[in-house]
Amino acid sequence: MENLDRCAIHTMTIKQWDLPTACAKFAAAGVPGVGVWRQWLDGRPLAESKKLLDDHGLTAVSLVRGGFFTGKTAEERQKAIDENRRCLDEAAAIGAGQVVLVCGADPEIPLPEARKQITEGIAACVPHAAATGVKLAIEPLHPMYADCRSAVNTIGQSNDIIDEVGADWVGIAVDAYHVWWDPNLEAEVARAGRRICGLHVCDWRTPTVDLLNDRGLMGEGCIDLPHLRRIVEATGFDGFIEVEIFSDRLWKRDPDQYLADIIDAYLKHV
Amino acid sequence: MENLDRCAIHTMTIKQWDLPTACAKFAAAGVPGVGVWRQWLDGRPLAESKKLLDDHGLTAVSLVRGGFFTGKTAEERQKAIDENRRCLDEAAAIGAGQVVLVCGADPEIPLPEARKQITEGIAACVPHAAATGVKLAIEPLHPMYADCRSAVNTIGQSNDIIDEVGADWVGIAVDAYHVWWDPNLEAEVARAGRRICGLHVCDWRTPTVDLLNDRGLMGEGCIDLPHLRRIVEATGFDGFIEVEIFSDRLWKRDPDQYLADIIDAYLKHV
Repeated sequence: MENLDRCAIHTMTIKQWDLPTACAKFAAAGVPGVGVWRQWLDGRPLAESKKLLDDHGLTAVSLVRGGFFTGKTAEERQKAIDENRRCLDEAAAIGAGQVVLVCGADPEIPLPEARKQITEGIAACVPHAAATGVKLAIEPLHPMYADCRSAVNTIGQSNDIIDEVGADWVGIAVDAYHVWWDPNLEAEVARAGRRICGLHVCDWRTPTVDLLNDRGLMGEGCIDLPHLRRIVEATGFDGFIEVEIFSDRLWKRDPDQYLADIIDAYLKHV
Repeated sequence: MENLDRCAIHTMTIKQWDLPTACAKFAAAGVPGVGVWRQWLDGRPLAESKKLLDDHGLTAVSLVRGGFFTGKTAEERQKAIDENRRCLDEAAAIGAGQVVLVCGADPEIPLPEARKQITEGIAACVPHAAATGVKLAIEPLHPMYADCRSAVNTIGQSNDIIDEVGADWVGIAVDAYHVWWDPNLEAEVARAGRRICGLHVCDWRTPTVDLLNDRGLMGEGCIDLPHLRRIVEATGFDGFIEVEIFSDRLWKRDPDQYLADIIDAYLKHV
């Protein structure tokens, strides 16, 4: 029987709630993990956010999002690296074991160059990751985001980057939405092995009417989530499973009812 | 100096025009090739469509679209195979050397099963392709169409399918829009070699506001078309370069001015 022991929800999933509300609601519902988006930390000292999480017995599974390593000048790229170091500090401060990386892309930077910049950016952050004890989790994004969000679009590319920069402080966050279509999914998940440090779930709707904010609740779409979970767990992964849904449609719902449906969908379809 | 000798335009690109109008306009503008969508053949005998093309000195580069091989029952899949055979007949009748395959997908059919069905469907059509002298051109579609249009999403998969079914009557139509993001693009184009029988161009806009009908005119987006053309031509490809754009925005334009801009963009950006 499935239970909620490994269930986490991203603050962005129910974005109507600020961190205090989300913590109270998640804890009351028996959801033990939170994917914390940085904006949810704004306006209060980090120690206070950590206390909020602790007081509710919640685990900060991940801090979302670092990355965005691409830039037209060395100065821009250095700024991104500095920002990622701050991100690692914040993650450490709230007890999150990983920073999720949306690696970055720019329509005016050719993909091969963007991919090189990303590898260099990640490599530059590894020492600080080691110092803070927080992992950098590369999240390959769906190819439809290769123009302006991430030039890293497959688990295969993430594996290639880790081959270059080392696996000690760099892992892979596998998000069902981004990777479900990949004909090399099984092979690259197996190749990743213990590099996989995150598993994000939602669903792909047909038709999808918006490139960004039309994700589905688990079970509303065509992704074979049990299969993905099975192959990811076959690598030894036993961490939290993070519900990350961006949806204009679902954000309009009553958040309490939505949370109940998220939990129901998690128990039934993940 | 670039010229229009290898320029083709899909009838769907300027969908306001029926076949007689498109033929007259393309010929007058010096565009020698047409990608003919099947709907444009409706309502007149095939021989008459062929005469239309011939009288204007136009080449039917491709017939669009066959494919859609997936189905929940053997009967449905057989119907698709029969339809593709009719498609090959139509292509032969208008003198088109290839039928472009949108291979098919269904959110209710798991991807591995869909991919198996597609391979079987193509294999079943090969004898008829040989009999008609028309190639089956697998067009891998962007992964954002893996739910309901095509479970074949990379040139790599297309190569794998051709490894199975044989290359005599099966080729690959490389569409910039679908493949530009692929980290294995160069390797798989090289592996495809002379299998490549089509090159389709348009552009990827930022932001893209619709998954289906927001393609850009060449030069409006971030795709490195000269690079793609270069690597495709390095395989020996010297066929027509087909302008295939679906755009609610561009379909609203005055078609004559739009045609002039297509030609301009082709000469400048391909």
